[in-house]
Amino acid sequence: MITKYKSRARKQPSAAVRPGGEFAPKRFEPRAVKTAAPVHPDSKLKIMVLGGLEEVGRNMTVFQYDKEIIIVDMGLQFPEEDMPGIDYIIPNVGYLEDKTEMIKGVIITHGHYDHIGGIPHLMGKLGNPPMFMGKLTAGIVKKRAEEFNKCPKLNIAEINEDSKLQLGKNFRVETLRVNHSIPDCFAAIIHTPIGTIIHTGDFKIDYSPVNDKPADLNRIAQIGGRGVLLLMADSTDAVHPGYQKSESSIGDEMSRIFEKLNGRIIIGTFASQLSRVQKLFDLAEKYGRRINLQGRSMNDNVEIAHQIGYLKFNPKILIEDHELNRLPDGKIMIIGTGAQGESNAFLMRVVNGEHRSVNLKAGDTVIFSSSVIPGNERTIQTLRDIIVRQGAKVINYEMMDVHAGGHAKQEDLKLMMRLLKPEYFMPIEANHYMLQAHAELAEQVGIPKEKIFVADNGQIVEFHRADGRALGKLTREKVVTDYVMVDGLGVGDVSNIVLRDRRVMAEDGMIVIIATIDNKTGDTIGNPDIISRGFVYMKENKELIQKTRMKVKKIVKDHNPRTPADDDYIKNKIRNDIGQFLFSQTKRRPMVLPVVIKV
Amino acid sequence: MITKYKSRARKQPSAAVRPGGEFAPKRFEPRAVKTAAPVHPDSKLKIMVLGGLEEVGRNMTVFQYDKEIIIVDMGLQFPEEDMPGIDYIIPNVGYLEDKTEMIKGVIITHGHYDHIGGIPHLMGKLGNPPMFMGKLTAGIVKKRAEEFNKCPKLNIAEINEDSKLQLGKNFRVETLRVNHSIPDCFAAIIHTPIGTIIHTGDFKIDYSPVNDKPADLNRIAQIGGRGVLLLMADSTDAVHPGYQKSESSIGDEMSRIFEKLNGRIIIGTFASQLSRVQKLFDLAEKYGRRINLQGRSMNDNVEIAHQIGYLKFNPKILIEDHELNRLPDGKIMIIGTGAQGESNAFLMRVVNGEHRSVNLKAGDTVIFSSSVIPGNERTIQTLRDIIVRQGAKVINYEMMDVHAGGHAKQEDLKLMMRLLKPEYFMPIEANHYMLQAHAELAEQVGIPKEKIFVADNGQIVEFHRADGRALGKLTREKVVTDYVMVDGLGVGDVSNIVLRDRRVMAEDGMIVIIATIDNKTGDTIGNPDIISRGFVYMKENKELIQKTRMKVKKIVKDHNPRTPADDDYIKNKIRNDIGQFLFSQTKRRPMVLPVVIKV
Repeated sequence: MITKYKSRARKQPSAAVRPGGEFAPKRFEPRAVKTAAPVHPDSKLKIMVLGGLEEVGRNMTVFQYDKEIIIVDMGLQFPEEDMPGIDYIIPNVGYLEDKTEMIKGVIITHGHYDHIGGIPHLMGKLGNPPMFMGKLTAGIVKKRAEEFNKCPKLNIAEINEDSKLQLGKNFRVETLRVNHSIPDCFAAIIHTPIGTIIHTGDFKIDYSPVNDKPADLNRIAQIGGRGVLLLMADSTDAVHPGYQKSESSIGDEMSRIFEKLNGRIIIGTFASQLSRVQKLFDLAEKYGRRINLQGRSMNDNVEIAHQIGYLKFNPKILIEDHELNRLPDGKIMIIGTGAQGESNAFLMRVVNGEHRSVNLKAGDTVIFSSSVIPGNERTIQTLRDIIVRQGAKVINYEMMDVHAGGHAKQEDLKLMMRLLKPEYFMPIEANHYMLQAHAELAEQVGIPKEKIFVADNGQIVEFHRADGRALGKLTREKVVTDYVMVDGLGVGDVSNIVLRDRRVMAEDGMIVIIATIDNKTGDTIGNPDIISRGFVYMKENKELIQKTRMKVKKIVKDHNPRTPADDDYIKNKIRNDIGQFLFSQTKRRPMVLPVVIKV
Repeated sequence: MITKYKSRARKQPSAAVRPGGEFAPKRFEPRAVKTAAPVHPDSKLKIMVLGGLEEVGRNMTVFQYDKEIIIVDMGLQFPEEDMPGIDYIIPNVGYLEDKTEMIKGVIITHGHYDHIGGIPHLMGKLGNPPMFMGKLTAGIVKKRAEEFNKCPKLNIAEINEDSKLQLGKNFRVETLRVNHSIPDCFAAIIHTPIGTIIHTGDFKIDYSPVNDKPADLNRIAQIGGRGVLLLMADSTDAVHPGYQKSESSIGDEMSRIFEKLNGRIIIGTFASQLSRVQKLFDLAEKYGRRINLQGRSMNDNVEIAHQIGYLKFNPKILIEDHELNRLPDGKIMIIGTGAQGESNAFLMRVVNGEHRSVNLKAGDTVIFSSSVIPGNERTIQTLRDIIVRQGAKVINYEMMDVHAGGHAKQEDLKLMMRLLKPEYFMPIEANHYMLQAHAELAEQVGIPKEKIFVADNGQIVEFHRADGRALGKLTREKVVTDYVMVDGLGVGDVSNIVLRDRRVMAEDGMIVIIATIDNKTGDTIGNPDIISRGFVYMKENKELIQKTRMKVKKIVKDHNPRTPADDDYIKNKIRNDIGQFLFSQTKRRPMVLPVVIKV
């Protein structure tokens, strides 16, 4: 059952906007705007994206008009390769922290981590405003929030494709069903006093999705007919020509594979790819296999989706680990996490021999049914190597069509623009060069270049009315969106200096040189202590270490330090001279850490 | 001019093998064997692959019969992601070090680093045996050897597609031209007393290669007709269905792109992709553009290839950096290195503003014309982002067909097997799961499973004759092939311990705790010194550091260390207790390095 949320703001006194009046934007259909507040000519609509890496449009979008704000999505981003040890990156909400009273609501488009992952970290800071999301999304968000002590009790209302939300006086939001790789994905149709904005979230166009309704193209066209001021659309696959594959075509290919297999089938996929999981349940049913679920997130998501009726299967099809050995191999399908080579996920634990119940053996077939996230390629290659070494076969999407992407490709993107006919366009949700590629597509379908905004994170896009028209511009104003890195319990406490040190030590290690100096004589006492890690293997480099000790002693002797200023001089001298010496001997540049102890 | 090398071994007394006699293998055509030595029934042919990572078949293959050895290729491998700071990995030649007298020759199939990169490091250790390689390969190998002080003067003889080499008494090698992404690629046809072996090196089948002759399919079929005991074939693209694209088809696509462009064209490719470079020179000629080369390896390779006539162009087409500003943009093509995001290559220096002569600007088009090496994906995405931010357009092989791979795909591989009709098959040159995929293709074309050997690195494949037939097996014997890592000047001196330390410090940093203890009282003098890098930002974590200091003081006070044994106890106690304390406070696990100084 889908409940509709009534915003507190709805109870406020309402005043209609004059239809077609002075302040109505060009092509604007006033029926769609039932805002409470009169439109003031000086009022501006500000739009900005917070968070993400160098990418734009990801994670969190802010809409501000007068003294009201609404937010779309609150995700996290996985770190870049040059951020060792960082768990993930959450949006920087510095701009919002003194404006929490203004936040009228948060709309979450779907349940993937890059759209929900920031919620438990940020909702406390943002005054815990009301949230709106699909039923499945709500289940996932609540489950995740349980793991965080600091997350306040969330105020979540569920939405469906008919939802209409009045948020504050100025924002009226309708939802539009779109397809992706998880059910319950909604684009947000945001009616503002300046005009209507569509934020697609992530989407693909799938005429025959699995266990999900197709996006309502007819309704999209109708929305387009009523006038769209700005379209903000998913650019993830904007560099790829053609059309995205339908999820149902994947099932056909999988079906052909399953027909031939007699051993156990082990599928690695994302726990969040619930459309895929539904297809697998259907195929298991068809081919008389029982299903064993592996990985906590897989179990959680299947449970949530099944409870609310989004995943349809007979619970008897599920088997526990201890039943795996009782059934013939040809009757078993294991669905688990770890297809990206994540270190603690199911597949990795299996190949490392750390899994209680599952070991690979000849006859097993492991199917990788997810695309490879950039950066994980080598890890996945190694994972496949080990699987094959352990006797199982590997099938992956490179070999056969066992994966359909979740994002619209170039022709799909053009279709969306043709149907919605936006006056302005803003590509979002991807790397900058993909946004640019999407911007070029927009030009191809006839949107004038000056009405296409490729914005940086934090860069403010502004709309206002003048002469009865809505005018937009990409301003040069930018709010702070520095990375907020999460590392263990620390949120935002890992600085660039800390990261730089990690990178240096990863590259060539470090060496600590401890010179104990006699306060009276200014000379070293005994031999300097040297500790090195990640540089050279000390036991095999005694000569190098001994030479380093002698050089340190000489530096101290030559300068005979007696004051604290002398100590700093000595430390710098050791850092520079020993650094150069070690480089000349090894062509490595370990971090040199001099310590001077005066006794 | 191609010179043929006459092996010293040829001068040895020759004795013909009896045709069709007792020792001739099944389907074996004795005309193809002109070995000098009589075949002894106890003699075994051993084949093993040295080097590579977990992969097999890469970098270096050893063939041993009686007391004679020949080697095919001597490459390097780039490190895995969990090997921070490592430059590359070279084959472990421990097995050969006491057998240098036996090595009769080294055949290099082509000039790519994964086939030549080990030469300067290893030839000294192997007694500098004679080497045989194509003219272009020789040019590249000699140039690279110049950079290494320790590399002996190489004894290189050039080969072409008609070369016939007698190496020792037992090995006669013919060369077979194959196509790849660099000219002068040869497969080795190795006639041994047990039978004929084909080692393909890297290859693709290209009926219309650029500036290179196509592989002689007719000759391949003839070789197949004479009987092939074992085929060892490139498996790099064995997981990819279909046929590889022809290099000439790429030119057509490029041509269409070039027609539309009016600004500067900047191409990022591999310096070793000389077929691509030729096509670019042809296109520059056609479209009236002058060429500026960037990157040392690009300049070196073009010079070498041009000198020997493998790259054909009018030298006047080349322009120097200072001419870039004098010519109109539409007349300029820059070909440079760095399409993989390598940190010191041309493209990276340009986007970082570190290049003397080239800055990106609006109107420029940067074409990425090479496939992405697994592991480089994120870096390349970031590179593309920056390029687009600097105003240039990006075109890459994902968007258009501007890259053809250099390796045979599944249908090509099957063709090769059909033409050669080998009795035994051994997939090489790729990750283990790709080798397995290739092995399955071999089964599909009718090679019996027990005659297909998927060997690990160092695992010995053995052939001998019995009952007039050649019999092969994959033994359980393995020679040592531990990684030999090159890091700066160090070869093989970075141990797993050093690597592990680098990984730990990269993840959560480290903290050095220096407790100065009074020898008499056994108590700390002053506050313990604490140095941390890559863990937390010290200035913002004074309380944590202060608490740590207090804990250290307490540990020392409680145990009052007076003997060296006490010191070790104290150090362990500090390492464990402080490690746990810091984890409880931060959920990070920095490396804790306790130092006890007694005064």
